[in-house]
Amino acid sequence: MSWQATILTLFPEMFPGPLGHSLAGRALRDGVWGLEAIDIRGFATDRHRSVDDTPCGGGAGMVLRPDVVDAAIGAALAAGPARPALVMTPRGVPLSQTRVRALAEGPGAILLCGRFEGIDQRVIEARGLEEISIGDYVLSGGEPAAMVLLDACIRLLPGVMGAAASAEEESFSQGLLEYPHYTRPTEWQGRAVPPVLLSGHHAEIARWRRAEAERITRERRPDLWAKLHPDAAGAGAMDGRPAAA
Amino acid sequence: MSWQATILTLFPEMFPGPLGHSLAGRALRDGVWGLEAIDIRGFATDRHRSVDDTPCGGGAGMVLRPDVVDAAIGAALAAGPARPALVMTPRGVPLSQTRVRALAEGPGAILLCGRFEGIDQRVIEARGLEEISIGDYVLSGGEPAAMVLLDACIRLLPGVMGAAASAEEESFSQGLLEYPHYTRPTEWQGRAVPPVLLSGHHAEIARWRRAEAERITRERRPDLWAKLHPDAAGAGAMDGRPAAA
Repeated sequence: MSWQATILTLFPEMFPGPLGHSLAGRALRDGVWGLEAIDIRGFATDRHRSVDDTPCGGGAGMVLRPDVVDAAIGAALAAGPARPALVMTPRGVPLSQTRVRALAEGPGAILLCGRFEGIDQRVIEARGLEEISIGDYVLSGGEPAAMVLLDACIRLLPGVMGAAASAEEESFSQGLLEYPHYTRPTEWQGRAVPPVLLSGHHAEIARWRRAEAERITRERRPDLWAKLHPDAAGAGAMDGRPAAA
Repeated sequence: MSWQATILTLFPEMFPGPLGHSLAGRALRDGVWGLEAIDIRGFATDRHRSVDDTPCGGGAGMVLRPDVVDAAIGAALAAGPARPALVMTPRGVPLSQTRVRALAEGPGAILLCGRFEGIDQRVIEARGLEEISIGDYVLSGGEPAAMVLLDACIRLLPGVMGAAASAEEESFSQGLLEYPHYTRPTEWQGRAVPPVLLSGHHAEIARWRRAEAERITRERRPDLWAKLHPDAAGAGAMDGRPAAA
């Protein structure tokens, strides 16, 4: 049984979009994963096919109706195996590689995408939807976020990427940013590849890469570094010194 | 002069993808923004049109060559006004709504997308590329990340979304997650809209929404809450109590 993605959206024509190309597209054609994009508008019950209404309490924008969304989720659940149901929203829990890995190991996912508007909170609670955010910025809708989540999952499915995926995965799961990469030409515009990488000494290369990954993580992501070294970071924050190297 | 996006990618056929639909697609057709996707492979110089090579020091995956990427960036810079040049990578600085707003107010952006591989660090340094990450997960390439960044910028361009965008924007820029939304029917499956939202008392509604936004931010994103209340969070972390409410 392949990994099954069901998208609930007002713009089903956006899918598969970028996921129809490159490795994800080939895996889709090969049946490694399956995709169904369901139009939420198909579950409207009035003659205007309306899916949203003004927010209770006033304010700009519109809110997706709970009854319409509930019917769409019911259809998605009926269309495949039991799967986690997620809603893409900046109010959600930040997406992590750990969550991506768990989703990729499961049977698939149902992804609800709002668009220029909110979703009635009652259907999120009634269906126990998992609210997920891909980052601290605002999108025009959940669709680009759903594509990002799917792309992250699909590359981990068996046979999609192979060794290259495993290597990156391992680097990231250690909580460090990746070390810098170099390739030929070894001298370019007066800039040389770091000599250790051309030395052939595997242990020294591994040491250099680890040190670079740690340096870059400390410099760019003190938040990630603090998670790896909670004591050092705490001390640094308290007495005003930067976190210990 | 419209906002100009230039994408450097090995898969130009992925664009505009989802950005060709809905409001972003209409704005693209109306000339509010312009998009050019340039194939990096067009800048290969050997007869095999190779753009990458094995990593110096060994390891899985391939690395994009500095000379090929440099030529592609040169072509992108020549194709439009002077603009920030960004590379989408999980090693980058996390994308924030502040950075999105600044990019949207500028003339556009050049976005370099790697794919299943790294990019030679020397061209990143030589061109002063800004390394940006959309979140702590690994994608198959920079393209879905570039689409997310563009979507976030485009919705802020004049005339694209209007009042709804401003409202969301304001909520997010206060550093809080959004309060929950409700619409009709006011009673659904035994679940009622919170009565205050139907009261007509604007001040009480505003107070309720603010309190809900604060509650949700504390519960889901202690990291964001700590930024708003550094003293309370620091004290809580030191003596083991949760951050003060």
